[in-house]
Amino acid sequence: MEKSWASSLDLLVPLEGGGGRRAALERAIRDAVRAGRLGAGERLPSSRALARDLGLARGTVAEAYGQLAAEGYLSTRPGAPTRVAAGLHPAEPNGAAPDPLPSPPRPRFDLRAGLPDVGAFPRSAWARTLRRALADAPDDALAGGDPRGRAELRGALASYLGRTRGVLADPERIVVTSGFTQGLLGLCRALREEGVRFLAMEDPCLWHQRDIAAGAGLRVAPLAVDDEGAVPEVPAGAGAAVVTPAHQFPLGATLAPARRSALVGWARDNGALVVEDDYDGEFRYDRQPVGALQGLDPEHVVYAGTASKTLAPALRLGWLVLPRRLIQSVAEAKQLLGGTPNLEQLALAELIRSGAFDRHVRRMRQRYRRRRDLLLELLAKRASKLRTRGVAAGLHLVLELPGGGDREDELLARAAERSLGLLGLGPFWHGARPERQGLVVGYAASPEHNYRRSLHVLGDVLGA
Amino acid sequence: MEKSWASSLDLLVPLEGGGGRRAALERAIRDAVRAGRLGAGERLPSSRALARDLGLARGTVAEAYGQLAAEGYLSTRPGAPTRVAAGLHPAEPNGAAPDPLPSPPRPRFDLRAGLPDVGAFPRSAWARTLRRALADAPDDALAGGDPRGRAELRGALASYLGRTRGVLADPERIVVTSGFTQGLLGLCRALREEGVRFLAMEDPCLWHQRDIAAGAGLRVAPLAVDDEGAVPEVPAGAGAAVVTPAHQFPLGATLAPARRSALVGWARDNGALVVEDDYDGEFRYDRQPVGALQGLDPEHVVYAGTASKTLAPALRLGWLVLPRRLIQSVAEAKQLLGGTPNLEQLALAELIRSGAFDRHVRRMRQRYRRRRDLLLELLAKRASKLRTRGVAAGLHLVLELPGGGDREDELLARAAERSLGLLGLGPFWHGARPERQGLVVGYAASPEHNYRRSLHVLGDVLGA
Repeated sequence: MEKSWASSLDLLVPLEGGGGRRAALERAIRDAVRAGRLGAGERLPSSRALARDLGLARGTVAEAYGQLAAEGYLSTRPGAPTRVAAGLHPAEPNGAAPDPLPSPPRPRFDLRAGLPDVGAFPRSAWARTLRRALADAPDDALAGGDPRGRAELRGALASYLGRTRGVLADPERIVVTSGFTQGLLGLCRALREEGVRFLAMEDPCLWHQRDIAAGAGLRVAPLAVDDEGAVPEVPAGAGAAVVTPAHQFPLGATLAPARRSALVGWARDNGALVVEDDYDGEFRYDRQPVGALQGLDPEHVVYAGTASKTLAPALRLGWLVLPRRLIQSVAEAKQLLGGTPNLEQLALAELIRSGAFDRHVRRMRQRYRRRRDLLLELLAKRASKLRTRGVAAGLHLVLELPGGGDREDELLARAAERSLGLLGLGPFWHGARPERQGLVVGYAASPEHNYRRSLHVLGDVLGA
Repeated sequence: MEKSWASSLDLLVPLEGGGGRRAALERAIRDAVRAGRLGAGERLPSSRALARDLGLARGTVAEAYGQLAAEGYLSTRPGAPTRVAAGLHPAEPNGAAPDPLPSPPRPRFDLRAGLPDVGAFPRSAWARTLRRALADAPDDALAGGDPRGRAELRGALASYLGRTRGVLADPERIVVTSGFTQGLLGLCRALREEGVRFLAMEDPCLWHQRDIAAGAGLRVAPLAVDDEGAVPEVPAGAGAAVVTPAHQFPLGATLAPARRSALVGWARDNGALVVEDDYDGEFRYDRQPVGALQGLDPEHVVYAGTASKTLAPALRLGWLVLPRRLIQSVAEAKQLLGGTPNLEQLALAELIRSGAFDRHVRRMRQRYRRRRDLLLELLAKRASKLRTRGVAAGLHLVLELPGGGDREDELLARAAERSLGLLGLGPFWHGARPERQGLVVGYAASPEHNYRRSLHVLGDVLGA
């Protein structure tokens, strides 16, 4: 009996008003059902457990349940739990109001940039490492701890980023974040506290980045981009320049060597920062990978990476490698914005440490390279007049639309008609740039089985 | 060979400078080790894999590895992976700099308030539900989605909160957060955008709450607290009053019925909000549990809860139940602050749906009630002159220190000497209140095996 009581459900029943305790119990449940607090099909505790919780005789609860069943509020069947009856209409049917945030349907063919193929997520490896992390975790890993994140993950990241990206990342200067957005927001807040009032960001860049800066109260100045990446002429007074050196997002250029030095030199001369968003640094298809800018000057470059492209965005795992003077203030800002679960951190640490993470990245690099090659073949056949940019790396390329041909919005409308998810270059520019139109074609997001069909639809849209 | 290549490790080696490719490779690895980017013991890819990655002959890589081993940079053994040799001193030994954020040691005896017994976390149930969530999750659960969080969890919470706390919570108005801090910060940001400039918070309250409001640019006015909970005299112009109706934190009073109505009435009359922090609503030890305030007026009360006390803080899972007009703005603010991983959300949904969550809460309620009873016994024996507050619910109680006896700081110093973790009432007050001294004794944080000894130490500290 003790067991059945403890293993039951909680139910809130305020026994108020006159007419005895059975009447009060009936009234409480009736009110909860009428008000919608107890929904149709909701399971109730056993009469024995509820009686004990409320200090009533079991018979009293059983009689009340019986009465409410007779009135149509509850449904009771021998051997089955008592439940709230279906088909009742609560006084204020909350669920019936229209959802203020309806989700847009996923396009049938998905060539949107910025997403990896989540169908390839290594579910069984992740399940294994999560289970091991949970079994091995010390109790303190369940309580909270260092605002920078678990030492196990910071250690694994320091090795991994040093080996694969040339980052000088001792574990003390790493702050684990719930993805890039949180990291950049935390950094912006820390900079604002230091008196920084504005940043430079590449034009074009991910529009969301500009919202993040604004969300921390910072203004954004544009940093021009050409075939050699960001032009290192940062407006005077900027506290930081946010750049994508390995593969400019979205245009795809690699930052030229002279510009790498110039940018870092600017930061050093002005007591400012370069924020290096290495958003797809793992995916480079030629044989000369480009190391991280951070290695040039760890005290003036913040390195930002995530597991969103290599594993899955829904893990919400990212990291910043920080100059020493910023560690404390960014860690404090990060803690305020919201913690990152320890178990997932331990699992990622183990995945990296075991080599399974490298294996997955190498497998995905082969897959994405094949997809890119298929896309280039298609473009050569169906859109040979359009110039492509940024094909050497990453998970997307840009198709430039010269004046006189199809316009961006026409092509996007045609794509939408075919349920093809596709982005235009438009929203990435800081201001309107009608003369610089283009399509951003992501070749990673699609499920594998659907990729060739998606390309086919793209061919139709471009060639129509 | 394909397999061994794909299953190898990534290594960044920029082949630059003169002297041939083997020399360039040797130089690149030597530089990486010297600079500390490749740390002692770090594993290198097999010579076959690296050769293929770089487009070199395998022999070239093997010779370079051999040369670097001869120079003492690498350590090679037949049949084992090549690694960076131990005992090297990189030019700038990053790891050697002192950590700017050293972690304080955990006290040997832990009676700090605000923490649950993480040793009782249901690891195997959580591992099972996580595994099932990962196996059953649709691919889109790995990609991202609704900024309010997964519909599965919002649905499970709506049922659970309606049944156990009397919350009117249809799933549309729930926003899942990475814990209470993130939820309150998101709400504060949304309110500030509506023009709110200050909030009222209970005095005393958790000091961290005041930091959160400040972090969103809001001022905080105090709301007095007496034996009936918060006094519902909210300063004119406040956009919201943040309260703990079920069990005032830290003083422990339950908000009196007349004050419940008065507070909600104030919010309604002023177009303002009550923010109900139901931080330990699950832990009430008498037979008349108090339902959530939110049920009185879902359009003027925000309900905030978390899994931090019922399961573990490190999960970083919380939720807000919002008035309709705030759903969109809070969801947008939440997304900016940092996402909450979907897999953990799916696991919690399944834990609630299966009844395992209720069982765990009921088990913990029995455990904490036993601990509270032991604490009260000890206090009756060793500190019978001190008045206790807030014993009917929650995970802590307050010991008032009358003038003339031991002072708060003396007792805390004595506790620290014995490695007893304990909080004083001091930091919870908005301003200094030397006449209101007390200790906040948490009976949940301690591991079970250590609890009686911790009480014993407390007895010594109080009775010394």
